[in-house]
Amino acid sequence: MDAEPSKNHIRNVVKQISFLLSPRTIAVIGASRTPGKIGHEILRNIVEYGFKGKVYPVNPNADEILGMKCYKSVLDIPDEVDMAVVVIPAQFVKEAIEQCGKKGVKAVAVISSGFGEVGKVKEEKEIVETAHKYGMRLLGPNIVGVYYAPIMLNATFGPRDVRVGNIAFITQSGALAIALMGWTILHDIGLSAIVSLGNKADIDDGDLLYFFEQDRNTRVILIYMEGVKDGRKFFKACKRVSLEKPIIVLKAGRSERGAIAASSHTGSLAGSDIIYDAAFKQTGVLRAKDIQEAFDWARAFASIDPPKREGVVIITNGGGAGVMATDACEENGLKLLEIPEDLARKFRECMPPFGSTKNPIDLTGQATDEKYEEAIRIAMMDERIGGIIAIYCHTAITDPVKLSHAITRAVYETGRLKPITVCYIGGERCYKGMKVLNEANIPAYPTPEQAVSAMAALYKWARFIKKEKAAKTSPKS
Amino acid sequence: MDAEPSKNHIRNVVKQISFLLSPRTIAVIGASRTPGKIGHEILRNIVEYGFKGKVYPVNPNADEILGMKCYKSVLDIPDEVDMAVVVIPAQFVKEAIEQCGKKGVKAVAVISSGFGEVGKVKEEKEIVETAHKYGMRLLGPNIVGVYYAPIMLNATFGPRDVRVGNIAFITQSGALAIALMGWTILHDIGLSAIVSLGNKADIDDGDLLYFFEQDRNTRVILIYMEGVKDGRKFFKACKRVSLEKPIIVLKAGRSERGAIAASSHTGSLAGSDIIYDAAFKQTGVLRAKDIQEAFDWARAFASIDPPKREGVVIITNGGGAGVMATDACEENGLKLLEIPEDLARKFRECMPPFGSTKNPIDLTGQATDEKYEEAIRIAMMDERIGGIIAIYCHTAITDPVKLSHAITRAVYETGRLKPITVCYIGGERCYKGMKVLNEANIPAYPTPEQAVSAMAALYKWARFIKKEKAAKTSPKS
Repeated sequence: MDAEPSKNHIRNVVKQISFLLSPRTIAVIGASRTPGKIGHEILRNIVEYGFKGKVYPVNPNADEILGMKCYKSVLDIPDEVDMAVVVIPAQFVKEAIEQCGKKGVKAVAVISSGFGEVGKVKEEKEIVETAHKYGMRLLGPNIVGVYYAPIMLNATFGPRDVRVGNIAFITQSGALAIALMGWTILHDIGLSAIVSLGNKADIDDGDLLYFFEQDRNTRVILIYMEGVKDGRKFFKACKRVSLEKPIIVLKAGRSERGAIAASSHTGSLAGSDIIYDAAFKQTGVLRAKDIQEAFDWARAFASIDPPKREGVVIITNGGGAGVMATDACEENGLKLLEIPEDLARKFRECMPPFGSTKNPIDLTGQATDEKYEEAIRIAMMDERIGGIIAIYCHTAITDPVKLSHAITRAVYETGRLKPITVCYIGGERCYKGMKVLNEANIPAYPTPEQAVSAMAALYKWARFIKKEKAAKTSPKS
Repeated sequence: MDAEPSKNHIRNVVKQISFLLSPRTIAVIGASRTPGKIGHEILRNIVEYGFKGKVYPVNPNADEILGMKCYKSVLDIPDEVDMAVVVIPAQFVKEAIEQCGKKGVKAVAVISSGFGEVGKVKEEKEIVETAHKYGMRLLGPNIVGVYYAPIMLNATFGPRDVRVGNIAFITQSGALAIALMGWTILHDIGLSAIVSLGNKADIDDGDLLYFFEQDRNTRVILIYMEGVKDGRKFFKACKRVSLEKPIIVLKAGRSERGAIAASSHTGSLAGSDIIYDAAFKQTGVLRAKDIQEAFDWARAFASIDPPKREGVVIITNGGGAGVMATDACEENGLKLLEIPEDLARKFRECMPPFGSTKNPIDLTGQATDEKYEEAIRIAMMDERIGGIIAIYCHTAITDPVKLSHAITRAVYETGRLKPITVCYIGGERCYKGMKVLNEANIPAYPTPEQAVSAMAALYKWARFIKKEKAAKTSPKS
């Protein structure tokens, strides 16, 4: 591979993206008075979500929108403008960007569609050139907007009540961005950022990786992509950034037919999936197989630190669930610890005589929340254990919400020494219990396989980091 | 393989199981006055769930429980007793079964634990011999009970509000039975039966298959197992029954380590997973990889008929979701139909000019519920299409609940000519919309992969049936 991008280059990219995601002032060019129109919804989302900076609507045919003074042109705004959101028909976009340039705007997000995705490749190239002429970076076109939690910026036409968290979500598909905003709200998943990339005419995944690498609000980066335009640039960024923060990629267009569909959707040359797969592995990128898995992993990375050593222990009250988790561990490359005799003796105190101290540790259906708490404390404190997977099948004996408090105590009072993922199998009360855990930053899932897969993702990343560090300190390098 | 079981044998097994699942009268031996005790909870579940027959509590130390007269012994009950639920300490079980035999009870369900699973193999053998001496069949021991919807029988100590439906659920793990009862309630999945098999000392999966084959209330059979004791018997039953009804098996203990865990849990000799896998394939059994997948498939079979021909069409409003579904189709062996020109012209009417009539049919983010309805009507009516996968990414344009009504109209007014599975990606409103679909027997899922996997299960079973029929009518046989 050729030389790494220079520090200066990276610093510059980060600065440019900062104007896009963290502007002090925004102009909404094409703001509309009509509810339901995209130019109205975006402005309303910005205002009502509680943007901490200033927002200026631009529309030559309106004096006031949502109680705010409206400007004929971005040039009329009596303030510096860091970022402009452009929501006007495609044929007027170039002129608007020209004016932004003259105004000294630093970055533009072009919501408008009708460019490369409908064959207007020349027009798309022209708006990028116009932006670059004035030193502006351009996001889009054909996007649903951007969201950035630290300044409460929701400049999208998606749902308003996005949960604040520390997962940065970058997506090539706008429809998925909006649909998944709703999905994350429902599943209590918090986001630090959402960036809809659209046609990626200028800003792409690679640029954003450098921004999120240094972003204190982001712990994990999740990317939905169908293809990359500049593979070399993207994987260089991955190689660097994944040493700092986990990057989860959901790459669609894996199959032959899927690649054709991707090319018809975003014009992505999906390329050979084998090559992508190899490049992901080499650069430490964690590849998820579907939306569910991607967010399951992201939830884990957002909540807990990766493991420091091998050796997982499964703690369960249901033998069947324990067997399923064991299968999943083997299939996901997780090593179950052989429980040494002294440790087995400790676990034996947490169960009736017919329990099992072989891994999975089976506390049996008689396990109370106290017994879970004891067992998890033991597992947290024992240095030979690297990670804990706790599984609970709903019984009449133990209330899931009470159990969640017990697990939380065990985890926090021992100092969160190692990662733990949890699975509750059951009905509504179990979902309430899992909510309590997730809010306490203990990732919880409704199936054993999900809890195992999340733990496995933590291990995969931890092993990558360890290997890279070893390579760097070895005499050869 | 040796000879098929005779018709007489099967008829006899069905009759025996009928006494267990569909008794007119039940004795609860070990009924208790103390809430929280298993002997109390089971009796209460039987009464409060609305059992259509008669129930008699048996307890020598009580005169009345839950307002019902209590009997000292099953022999004192002034009525015929079809089935007895036994909830007393292990050492008294044999004597109770002896009395059941004398009373003329037809089947016993032994909830009590403390037999084979704790090494008391001799005692377990004895209770079975005692039951057989009187011509009774025995379920268990070490179970959580049985549920059978047609007579509103909930003789379990699990949740009371199980949803009536047509999935029969057989499980070796009692903890999973109870946990998954709650889970099915939460996910609006209806069950015709739940049978906890426990130690399988007598009645096993094979016996139950024959019962559910002829059970008009059951459309699909779902089995959780860690191993079978009599593989020959089980797979003979599978071979026969899977020609009539789909059998979904979740077989844990796939991995080496999982098999060891299974053996420590239920004493199952898990056997080589490769052999199981081959036997499942040969007998048409659909093997699910986890709980989620098993119930996703069961929901589909419970709701809709399998496809009559190959050729699936994906209808979507989001290109990205379409690509993901396409990947999943290829990975699940589903053939996407190449859309012929005349059909493409029809679909073109349902979309703006930048939509796509290549499969996936992309109605674009502008798709309204009317456009979905039109497109699904077209797909339902076209004879070249075998199955439909409809995907919706939440947009501001279309309300998911309204969309569900539109889809339901399109499906029902065209006569439900072929299977359709649906995926809604989004937040709470999407879940409401999916609920409407599921209640209308149109299976709906929150991810494209699940909708595809369910359709693929329908196809797998349909292909098995077709192949078997062809083999039977070919000159060779």
